[in-house]
Amino acid sequence: MNITDGTEVNHPMNDSGLPVRHADRPVCVAVDWGTSRFRAHLVAESARLLDSVASDDGMSRAEPGGFEAVLTRMCGPWLAAHRGIPVLMAGMVGSRNGWREVPYVPCPAGLAEIADSILSFEIAGGTRVAIVPGLVVDDATADVMRGEETQILGVGVDDAVVVLPGTHSKWALLRNGRIESFRTFMTGEVFGLFTHRSVLRLLAEPSIEGEAERAAFRAGLAAATAGGGLLHRAFFARAGVLTGKLAPCDVEPHVSGLLIGSEVGEAMKLAPDDLPLVLVADGIVATNYREAIAAAGREVELVDPERAFVDGLIRLARLGKGVSDVRVR
Amino acid sequence: MNITDGTEVNHPMNDSGLPVRHADRPVCVAVDWGTSRFRAHLVAESARLLDSVASDDGMSRAEPGGFEAVLTRMCGPWLAAHRGIPVLMAGMVGSRNGWREVPYVPCPAGLAEIADSILSFEIAGGTRVAIVPGLVVDDATADVMRGEETQILGVGVDDAVVVLPGTHSKWALLRNGRIESFRTFMTGEVFGLFTHRSVLRLLAEPSIEGEAERAAFRAGLAAATAGGGLLHRAFFARAGVLTGKLAPCDVEPHVSGLLIGSEVGEAMKLAPDDLPLVLVADGIVATNYREAIAAAGREVELVDPERAFVDGLIRLARLGKGVSDVRVR
Repeated sequence: MNITDGTEVNHPMNDSGLPVRHADRPVCVAVDWGTSRFRAHLVAESARLLDSVASDDGMSRAEPGGFEAVLTRMCGPWLAAHRGIPVLMAGMVGSRNGWREVPYVPCPAGLAEIADSILSFEIAGGTRVAIVPGLVVDDATADVMRGEETQILGVGVDDAVVVLPGTHSKWALLRNGRIESFRTFMTGEVFGLFTHRSVLRLLAEPSIEGEAERAAFRAGLAAATAGGGLLHRAFFARAGVLTGKLAPCDVEPHVSGLLIGSEVGEAMKLAPDDLPLVLVADGIVATNYREAIAAAGREVELVDPERAFVDGLIRLARLGKGVSDVRVR
Repeated sequence: MNITDGTEVNHPMNDSGLPVRHADRPVCVAVDWGTSRFRAHLVAESARLLDSVASDDGMSRAEPGGFEAVLTRMCGPWLAAHRGIPVLMAGMVGSRNGWREVPYVPCPAGLAEIADSILSFEIAGGTRVAIVPGLVVDDATADVMRGEETQILGVGVDDAVVVLPGTHSKWALLRNGRIESFRTFMTGEVFGLFTHRSVLRLLAEPSIEGEAERAAFRAGLAAATAGGGLLHRAFFARAGVLTGKLAPCDVEPHVSGLLIGSEVGEAMKLAPDDLPLVLVADGIVATNYREAIAAAGREVELVDPERAFVDGLIRLARLGKGVSDVRVR
């Protein structure tokens, strides 16, 4: 159900289609607060999502000092109806320009180290808020994440290469339940820049879902591994249209294939053969990455991003200072 | 001398510092009309540039039907003072959205084929205008250029790999005076997108000319060839600042090194060892590319871009329909 301005509210039913049992009481609010989106879930004792809301109130829009107001506007009814339930958060909300800065925890790091660094505080009405720290790879390469650490800890396996596509995709090495290291790829952001801000947008037309679109995506994947480099291969999205080799509606899927293929090609070099690949994605993103990884000769296990986030948050809360009374399952 | 709004006018002296001799009469106007800039030179019989003007009246600003007005505003005084001299043009002015579309000439192509396809027409006052066609690589890869073909034909050698850095850098294979093929790299445009439109701009501060800046550029070059791919390596311009490994003022030179290093690394794979490398660039761009190519183990011969453009245009005009009466040197 869409209310206004990108805000969505869902009232899930249980598997039988009936409203959830009264006995499955809410135990916490789980908030994924990133750069562009605010998403929150009312989580039951069974870990079921009783209710969800989302809006475009990301960090890039929130005003300094305005975070509590956004939380109250979005989740106030839950907090009023279930007095005393804590609010668990992860994502850019803990960054320098977020609500409260929570310093990065260095890799390797597992549940214990991350939960130890959770920052918790009280807001009006006595509501406890807890923010999960991000992670840093503090070597010469240097890398950072905020929010994905929570999803990685929620995928349900202890040893895997976990792939989290997005604006800034992350590939993380998970061993014995600890995140050993990870790498960021600016794939989603570069896709936006290429298709909305660069010369490549000039000849592009909206893509049309179907087999031709998939073929254009696959041609992009192939181009990524055919040599020449991204800076050269991307220009085909212009020269190909000018020479009649690429339909204007296939520019976007081609660029998507090229970028995802470039990311997967580089990242797979770091993925040990003995570890399963876990892909945290849904919808067309899952389809695209699964296909790119298959083209590179590997299979993936798919995990729902929202489920992984909430499960990771619940696992962290159990050990976190100030919120360890959260009991789920 | 700056007049207004990006417009520049230069009145060159001859080598002795005295005004040019009256006997060295103007024989043509040479116009480099690209996406973002309009540049024109009054060319003497000796090939010397008697006068130059430039402005931001590129294709992206010019209105349909407004091209003649721009030419008259910028070069009217020359055309009035030297009645009958032709105007020779190359660049995006001959594109689909330019003044008149001049179809691409397929590679391989030399002076003869390109001159054969020059489009010439008359404008008010009887002034003859000639527009040089662009080139197309019409194979599965597909590539296009407009304007650079003229510079390549003006570098003064018949066998070389010609490197033309820019918004869309070109690497061309020149053999026996013919452009056999070429490749585009979107290096300059991606630099602009990364440093002005992406998340990388958020932690960046203006760069400071000096040794630290050069070191940051060289670190970017090294990162380009260290593996991991551009989509990953670019994120260091954020994560490196957050972890204190990269100064905010070094973000731009680092990204510059990374992008130029990526371009050169890929392009050099196509540069035959038996051909000299000719770099058509000046200023900091020449410094950067020379260093990137040196890091890849090759030396370059430097050619002035403006000189190459005018020399190429003069060579083409001699053979071009409607303007072959242009006699220089």
